[in-house]
Amino acid sequence: ESQRNVNAKIVLLPGDGIGPEVTEEGRKILVEVAEKFGHKFEFESHPIGGNAIDDFGDPLPEATLNACRNADGILLGAVGGPKWDDPTAKTRPEAGLLKIRKELGLFANLRPITTHEFLLDSSPLRREIVEGTDIFFVRELTGGIYFGDSNLEQNADGSETATSTMVYSTHEIERVVRVAAKAAQGRSGHLTSVDKANVLEASRLWRKVAERVVREEFPDLKYDVVLVDAMAMHLISRPSTFDVVVTGNMFGDILTDEGSMLPGSMGLLPSASLGSDGPGLYEPIHGSAPDIAGLGIANPLATILAAAMLLRHSLNLDDEAKAIEAAVDAVLSAGHRTKDLAKDGEVSLGTIEMGQKVIEAL
Amino acid sequence: ESQRNVNAKIVLLPGDGIGPEVTEEGRKILVEVAEKFGHKFEFESHPIGGNAIDDFGDPLPEATLNACRNADGILLGAVGGPKWDDPTAKTRPEAGLLKIRKELGLFANLRPITTHEFLLDSSPLRREIVEGTDIFFVRELTGGIYFGDSNLEQNADGSETATSTMVYSTHEIERVVRVAAKAAQGRSGHLTSVDKANVLEASRLWRKVAERVVREEFPDLKYDVVLVDAMAMHLISRPSTFDVVVTGNMFGDILTDEGSMLPGSMGLLPSASLGSDGPGLYEPIHGSAPDIAGLGIANPLATILAAAMLLRHSLNLDDEAKAIEAAVDAVLSAGHRTKDLAKDGEVSLGTIEMGQKVIEAL
Ligand SMILES: CC(C)[C@H](C(=O)O)[C@@H](O)C(=O)O
Ligand SMILES: CC(C)[C@H](C(=O)O)[C@@H](O)C(=O)O
Repeated sequence: ESQRNVNAKIVLLPGDGIGPEVTEEGRKILVEVAEKFGHKFEFESHPIGGNAIDDFGDPLPEATLNACRNADGILLGAVGGPKWDDPTAKTRPEAGLLKIRKELGLFANLRPITTHEFLLDSSPLRREIVEGTDIFFVRELTGGIYFGDSNLEQNADGSETATSTMVYSTHEIERVVRVAAKAAQGRSGHLTSVDKANVLEASRLWRKVAERVVREEFPDLKYDVVLVDAMAMHLISRPSTFDVVVTGNMFGDILTDEGSMLPGSMGLLPSASLGSDGPGLYEPIHGSAPDIAGLGIANPLATILAAAMLLRHSLNLDDEAKAIEAAVDAVLSAGHRTKDLAKDGEVSLGTIEMGQKVIEAL
Repeated sequence: ESQRNVNAKIVLLPGDGIGPEVTEEGRKILVEVAEKFGHKFEFESHPIGGNAIDDFGDPLPEATLNACRNADGILLGAVGGPKWDDPTAKTRPEAGLLKIRKELGLFANLRPITTHEFLLDSSPLRREIVEGTDIFFVRELTGGIYFGDSNLEQNADGSETATSTMVYSTHEIERVVRVAAKAAQGRSGHLTSVDKANVLEASRLWRKVAERVVREEFPDLKYDVVLVDAMAMHLISRPSTFDVVVTGNMFGDILTDEGSMLPGSMGLLPSASLGSDGPGLYEPIHGSAPDIAGLGIANPLATILAAAMLLRHSLNLDDEAKAIEAAVDAVLSAGHRTKDLAKDGEVSLGTIEMGQKVIEAL
């Protein structure tokens, strides 16, 4: 049992598609934790994404953003769907995501890629290759080419020229490398930084600063540097040789998605986005899955594991986080499966039933 | 037998590491083709890469570049090695590669990813997933973030800010999409364009122009658009569903390298870099493999297949190209293997012996 009793304000951003269904199971597990460990969590739910565009003309309404600023932690479901995919639309659900990251200064995106024995045969990789993979990605999330200047110019001859600028400064690189290096200290002590320093000026600064931070502040880590193209190969040829991997916003977008294929299901992968202070944002890495929205069959486990990350990183409740993770492991070990995890012919649980199993195991 | 008799000047750029060994086998096959089909090929060899830095202080000496400008086709081995890896060095082997691409206007990099039955069990992917994969990547090679403005600034507080600019213009996108669309017409008629249009202005222009070119000029193609992060996933979860894939320089760098893992060996993958006119540059996609340089065990087949691409794309000798490809297939079907392709315990041929087998099969 935890020694402190914590009061916390948690903002729920259910979003679109299956978002509301899985977020509700995340909320229930947090309620259970509060009860069991003597904490007091207050919940507030706010719109984000496509439904917020429909209702307020804005994928991140001001009221949502303000509530987030005043929260201790934020649990997000998922945003988007075909309804809001029109490229000529004035705004799109993703704009809400990018804005909340920037406004709350969530510069470090943590994406653990863990594998489970029972899923190994569902991985697109051979069992021998993927077995033992346990990668902790740290992706820079508020800089790089996502937020640099961009421009669209009409040329005299009727053609157009578009630019997007990748920009990194010393301070931005330092702080995210520190997050990754600290994570490596708490794991196997191995940090890999990924860049494209043989071509990009922005990557050359990244490499220089990352190396200095590690050398000066984390000299005990095993540290190496890999080019992004090589990393795209190594991730599938020898994924189990990595521990913590830190990289910029764009490379992280591509590599973490590539990595998300390894475990054989995205249904168990949470992610956390943290700033230097203020609330963190926690979410499953899967999307809003509009095709199964409302059917009650979505897998809530990634969201439940995101709730565990919220407890660990935003409320400093590591025991409670571990309790949730252990409960999820126990439920999986007992053979309980949602539809996405079930083999052909295996019985599968619905969203609410699966959430209930985890609560019982807690 | 071909109807035309062709005179052609072919420049060989052996480069570093195993480059010279594999290039020599490429040259021999071209000599054999010339004899058999009644052509006249003249060869000239020039330095590039690390050895050119050692001897001339320049990874792409002016004389090499001039020879390339006057050639009908260029066959490159590989460049680089630990000796020239010092990041603080004045110049590096890769600079030679980037410069030759830009100077010769080689804007379209063709990278076929083909799979071979006998190698399927060496792929990091499960056989069921990778089976039937046959992707033709077309990567834009002289634009994008590789060649946009870049800058390193010292800030007042002692920190630094580095920028690299991704830039694309209508014309650059049009011409590479046309190359890809034509390739798709000659294959299964399916073209996929990869971008990050939900975030990047440069990608939004890419998407708009690509769609217009395909709609107006290639309306019969099956055409779709995939985000780069999703593509990094699909490449390992359902690689066999793609035909021709076109994308920008940076995304192409990452995705083609990821794709190069699929066949189970890079030893059979050639690449071609083409401009609107002038000579094309052909090379194996593998590196200079300094660890096995000089041992006579390097696999020459990717270079031999690159020589076939040279015949097809630069000399318009498709029958001759097919003859080489058929000869390589025959040699592999007969069970001949270099060390990198051999299973444990299987006898393997050296570089020269393998080259000889292909000549005999021709
Ligand atoms: C939706 C999109 C803007 C976003 C990104 O590219 O960051 C997503 O792919 C992600 O990784 O969270
Ligand atoms: C060596 C490097 C500059 C080059 C690139 O990034 O283009 C290489 O990775 C390639 O793909 O040919």
